[in-house]
Amino acid sequence: MEFRLFFDWEGEEIERGFELLQREYEGGKVGYYHLPELSRAYLKWEPEVEYREVVVVGIGGSSLGAKAVYHLNAPYYPVKPLFFLENPDPVDLLSQLQKVTNPLFFVISKSGKTIETISILKYLISHFGLKPGAKNLKIITGKESPLDKFGEEWRLERFYIPDNVGGRFSVLSSVGILPLKSAGFPIGLLLKGAEEFRNSFFAGREEHLLKKGAFYATNWEKFPINVLFAYGTLLNYFKEWYVQLFGESLGKEGREIMPVGHIGSIDQHSFLQLLMEGLPNKSVTFLKIAHFGKNLQIPNLSLPGLEMTNFTNGSLFEELINLEEKATLESLKSRGLVLDEIVLPQVDLYRTGKLIFYYQLLTSLIGALWGIDTYNQNGVEMGKRILPTLFQRG
Amino acid sequence: MEFRLFFDWEGEEIERGFELLQREYEGGKVGYYHLPELSRAYLKWEPEVEYREVVVVGIGGSSLGAKAVYHLNAPYYPVKPLFFLENPDPVDLLSQLQKVTNPLFFVISKSGKTIETISILKYLISHFGLKPGAKNLKIITGKESPLDKFGEEWRLERFYIPDNVGGRFSVLSSVGILPLKSAGFPIGLLLKGAEEFRNSFFAGREEHLLKKGAFYATNWEKFPINVLFAYGTLLNYFKEWYVQLFGESLGKEGREIMPVGHIGSIDQHSFLQLLMEGLPNKSVTFLKIAHFGKNLQIPNLSLPGLEMTNFTNGSLFEELINLEEKATLESLKSRGLVLDEIVLPQVDLYRTGKLIFYYQLLTSLIGALWGIDTYNQNGVEMGKRILPTLFQRG
Repeated sequence: MEFRLFFDWEGEEIERGFELLQREYEGGKVGYYHLPELSRAYLKWEPEVEYREVVVVGIGGSSLGAKAVYHLNAPYYPVKPLFFLENPDPVDLLSQLQKVTNPLFFVISKSGKTIETISILKYLISHFGLKPGAKNLKIITGKESPLDKFGEEWRLERFYIPDNVGGRFSVLSSVGILPLKSAGFPIGLLLKGAEEFRNSFFAGREEHLLKKGAFYATNWEKFPINVLFAYGTLLNYFKEWYVQLFGESLGKEGREIMPVGHIGSIDQHSFLQLLMEGLPNKSVTFLKIAHFGKNLQIPNLSLPGLEMTNFTNGSLFEELINLEEKATLESLKSRGLVLDEIVLPQVDLYRTGKLIFYYQLLTSLIGALWGIDTYNQNGVEMGKRILPTLFQRG
Repeated sequence: MEFRLFFDWEGEEIERGFELLQREYEGGKVGYYHLPELSRAYLKWEPEVEYREVVVVGIGGSSLGAKAVYHLNAPYYPVKPLFFLENPDPVDLLSQLQKVTNPLFFVISKSGKTIETISILKYLISHFGLKPGAKNLKIITGKESPLDKFGEEWRLERFYIPDNVGGRFSVLSSVGILPLKSAGFPIGLLLKGAEEFRNSFFAGREEHLLKKGAFYATNWEKFPINVLFAYGTLLNYFKEWYVQLFGESLGKEGREIMPVGHIGSIDQHSFLQLLMEGLPNKSVTFLKIAHFGKNLQIPNLSLPGLEMTNFTNGSLFEELINLEEKATLESLKSRGLVLDEIVLPQVDLYRTGKLIFYYQLLTSLIGALWGIDTYNQNGVEMGKRILPTLFQRG
């Protein structure tokens, strides 16, 4: 993997940020740093039941991580389909359930009482006639949560989310690892990539990350928006995962680096105009895949009237999408924005693990330099308190 | 449909904005105002060929409109599947084409030389063995464009995009109407809703829109970001359409109102924290569907350990998602953000037409009050000029 910065930063925040993260890593308060080792325990786990599809019942941090890994990697591994019942939207629920014939369910909620998730669980129990002891109903939750108690009563297989791992940092815990393993992904590779990137960072070999985080943290008032421009439709849910990670971690105490995700080259025809001529208050990260590995070629075809398009003839589609990325990056350079580029040489779980850990460390670094609590999300509590009162009124 | 503003505005921009838009409507420079009448010409058109799927080959304004209407309405009408070949991403192209058995193609590009679209066209010609005179290959483009010339040479059925209608304002032109009609949608309803909303606006009956646009235009430096929080997964591509419409129209001359799309209730678990505790520089529009029409109920089930979730028991899922919206809106009121709410009573093409015209008028209004050219997109040209030189170098 390559990480290219098109800006420089030399401040003391680099060294300070490194020390702050080392302290987090060595302390016990922030658990995600240790998941690559902890989750090895799941390598040998098997669901011990027949199933055709894996269905995750969860929302936010309970689904986005596995969804990101699944949609990015599914084209490259022979896996079972993975569904995500997240939204209490009846149209979406019915449309997904239509495709489910013999499911293995993972009901995931750290608090164990997420109202969307538990309401959907009730529907599934009723719709599929699930009973106490059901082998195809697995629970992933915080220890002694309401969902944990339910699982105990119903004699269901239960897995725990460590207390010191928050939802948006939980993809490498049971939350992401068990559904992905059940779909058939060799999750050891994901953990290996994550572990190697973490070790490389703490061995001082990922200077680019420190520079970028130090720059973002120090200049956030000038650049309060970060755009992730990800080239390839298969990165669609990776960008959603990134939006949650940045948004919930770094939007607090009157500060923010607002995450915005876009897909190239599609959104060049949608969002590029604003980047070129709107407010110059954004950093933009380009994420691309050097080799998609499908060797799909643009035919050497000269069509009458369309000769001016012949410059792509005989090229691979992956060359076209990647040169679109290059041309866009070049044109944004003229604009003086804060640019960087991440290149995945190819898509696999090993690189995905690295990329995940890269983004988690970047988030932790900015939060640590700001001195905020990166890992809480108090801002979402008020709505949760209001909701039950609305039902009582209705 | 209901439009509720949770802020007020009394400035002279309201009257001025109305006059500026009236002038645009009555002048000939901006064509989209007249599409509801013009596109009636397509009501009787038939593709005159057998097909199982409709495939749009186009990107940005050539696909986002039909995609928005399709994904919102497909659950409610008995239609053929509609595919969108947009991205020159080989994985996405192959995965979509796998599902296509007997396609009707619409190749759409106003300039007639969009490189992604023409490169994909070449692949389709080669892959499906398409020949001159093919009845299942239709062209939608600007008159005398390179693609028009190709269509003429190949004796293909061609449709034109009016010169004075830009891509992002073209959903009610041939660009959106023909693929949607071919899929089986009764597009007369879409045109009717659009026309009625336009007429109502110009009859002075949509004061809320004038107030909102005047507020946004006047206070853009304080509120340079607009979040569309759309409740329901089926609104996913409507939000993408809105992002292009706002982004390309209003991101220019050093100004912007940056559009950000989110889906509720999913993104309450992702983006709400930042709205609650980040920078107070955003307007937020809530868009919800009062009745999804599927009557999917949360069972009256009390699960051991989970009794505190019983407050949703016996409710419809649509009540849950809509009370989630209400609770979130209430909690954001405490934050002093600029809030408004759009309520679709139900989903149908008629309401979709209204919603489309509402957003188009809002965009025109802000642009007119700013005195910018809402309808160009010069910022995307540099990348297009750079791209061919990268191929020559390679």
